[in-house]
Amino acid sequence: MREHDTVRPISWHDDCLWLLDQRRLPQAQLYLQIADAQAAAQAIRDMVVRGAPAIGITAAYAVALAARQAQAGTGDWHAAMPAVLAMLAQARPTAVNLHWALARMQQALEQGADWQALLQLAQRIQAEDVAANQHMGALGAAILGEDVGVLTHCNTGSLATGGFGTALGVIRTAYGQGQIRRLFATETRPWLQGARLTVWELIQDRIPVSLIADSAAAHFMARGEIDWVIVGADRITANGDVANKIGTYALAIAARHHGLRVMVVAPWSTVDMTLATGADIPIEYRDGRELLAAVAQRDDLLEALDPAFDVTPAALVDVLVTERGLLHRPDAQQLALLATA
Amino acid sequence: MREHDTVRPISWHDDCLWLLDQRRLPQAQLYLQIADAQAAAQAIRDMVVRGAPAIGITAAYAVALAARQAQAGTGDWHAAMPAVLAMLAQARPTAVNLHWALARMQQALEQGADWQALLQLAQRIQAEDVAANQHMGALGAAILGEDVGVLTHCNTGSLATGGFGTALGVIRTAYGQGQIRRLFATETRPWLQGARLTVWELIQDRIPVSLIADSAAAHFMARGEIDWVIVGADRITANGDVANKIGTYALAIAARHHGLRVMVVAPWSTVDMTLATGADIPIEYRDGRELLAAVAQRDDLLEALDPAFDVTPAALVDVLVTERGLLHRPDAQQLALLATA
Repeated sequence: MREHDTVRPISWHDDCLWLLDQRRLPQAQLYLQIADAQAAAQAIRDMVVRGAPAIGITAAYAVALAARQAQAGTGDWHAAMPAVLAMLAQARPTAVNLHWALARMQQALEQGADWQALLQLAQRIQAEDVAANQHMGALGAAILGEDVGVLTHCNTGSLATGGFGTALGVIRTAYGQGQIRRLFATETRPWLQGARLTVWELIQDRIPVSLIADSAAAHFMARGEIDWVIVGADRITANGDVANKIGTYALAIAARHHGLRVMVVAPWSTVDMTLATGADIPIEYRDGRELLAAVAQRDDLLEALDPAFDVTPAALVDVLVTERGLLHRPDAQQLALLATA
Repeated sequence: MREHDTVRPISWHDDCLWLLDQRRLPQAQLYLQIADAQAAAQAIRDMVVRGAPAIGITAAYAVALAARQAQAGTGDWHAAMPAVLAMLAQARPTAVNLHWALARMQQALEQGADWQALLQLAQRIQAEDVAANQHMGALGAAILGEDVGVLTHCNTGSLATGGFGTALGVIRTAYGQGQIRRLFATETRPWLQGARLTVWELIQDRIPVSLIADSAAAHFMARGEIDWVIVGADRITANGDVANKIGTYALAIAARHHGLRVMVVAPWSTVDMTLATGADIPIEYRDGRELLAAVAQRDDLLEALDPAFDVTPAALVDVLVTERGLLHRPDAQQLALLATA
């Protein structure tokens, strides 16, 4: 690994899968040894590992672990695999990459792969994810310019992927090339992915960062400190609308108000061509426990509303970066072209 | 007090001043008995009481307490008073209302007031503050319209004033008149004045509220849930620019983006006609401890930037309410007219 890219939350060594326990970060840096598919599914359910690409890679390794265990027994080891695949698929049903990775593993199984071949495929899926991120990093950094101020939101780094990251991959690349004057990270309420995970990852990788409250971003935009807002995505619709971590939309509005640019970085698997616009994306609400932590009373008059995502219209996105290429002012026509690439 | 106005953080009874300890809210509702001016100054320094009007009122009562103590002794009791006034003035040097209140008390002293007359003046200063807030509440509510969604930020209620509140006074009045369909309060990072104080105060006063992360406001604007953003102010310059709690500016930008209106509610003492524009307002930075609470490591690569305020340009303010009257699209000309009213 390179100078500004040291964190890998998922790794295979000593004949086991190891996962960095992200629930414990940043207070403790604890790697859990995952010896079988059941433990892997539990780790996905419990958010030991999070981020759609990271979840898919974990599930791929879990299939190899299950195959090894089955092959060590007697009889037809293939008979045990469908139940394993089903269990893994249900660990986080909404993560698209999970199903994509499991489909690849199942195909290999059907083509006669043994556990060693399955392990190699899992390792290849992880390597491909890192390579896609590095490619996106180069594409995005190439158009950032020099001496730029950058703001990012949530965690989109090595911790959310096989390694390197999406939006944080662009930032990592640009920092290594000396393009970044100053990097701001929002704390990202209410789960604090920015304060907890992004800050930790950047310090590991020796990239300087200024942590700010989400609500302070516009203040620093007005002071000319920020040129680009660079974020990831959870789902992108056929017209280029972007669902991402709550707060992204407000940052995009403020960026446009100040004449700054917004870059969205996401693997092509994030693009959902079956949805026409962001209005079709269901917005997940969490139970608001974080918001209520500071509130002493529970009362019928009080509700905590905790949408996990918001939708940024394509019109507020200046650049969309995927491993298939980079789009300026993404729209339905450009995305349709890229979909057939 | 009326149905939706029950909280008074400052009161005089049993020959003592009583202050609701806002450091302990919302977990504990503890009133501190303040028997002398030294204890009052300490309470101001320690943020037992906060909010410029509330601090000024507390200092006025403290002068009466000091006069009572001095009159109980022998010799010329007036000799002790200059040191008391100086001590109180230094308790929070930046709070404008503190100096204004102390100047009124000093004038009464010079005109021969004894401690009972000084107590009556302190009570009058508090009553005038409540009356000004009630007047602003009526002015603001009169133009809100019916069936409106309102978003407020920080705490501008009874806890920040002699009682009733500024922005929260408008909301209180409008709620009592049945005009408010839905009220959103931001949690107001990083000090959580919204989650800790505003939610507590609204529950006391039986006004329903939806608590959201600061970063979620734009999401609810896009969904048509919000018609007005109503906030207070810490300083207003001669051209109508508004310094207020960090995050106000981002809310005003998002409101304009969605075609919603922004109302600023503040007593005239908040207007600083000696400053031409918001660019002249020094922005106080806190030490960022709250932002770093979730961060395990301290590192030279990491800084937490914690501006306490931001500046919203007058162009983003639709309505400014003071007790001297209500201005639509405030500007230098209108403010100059009101300054001579």
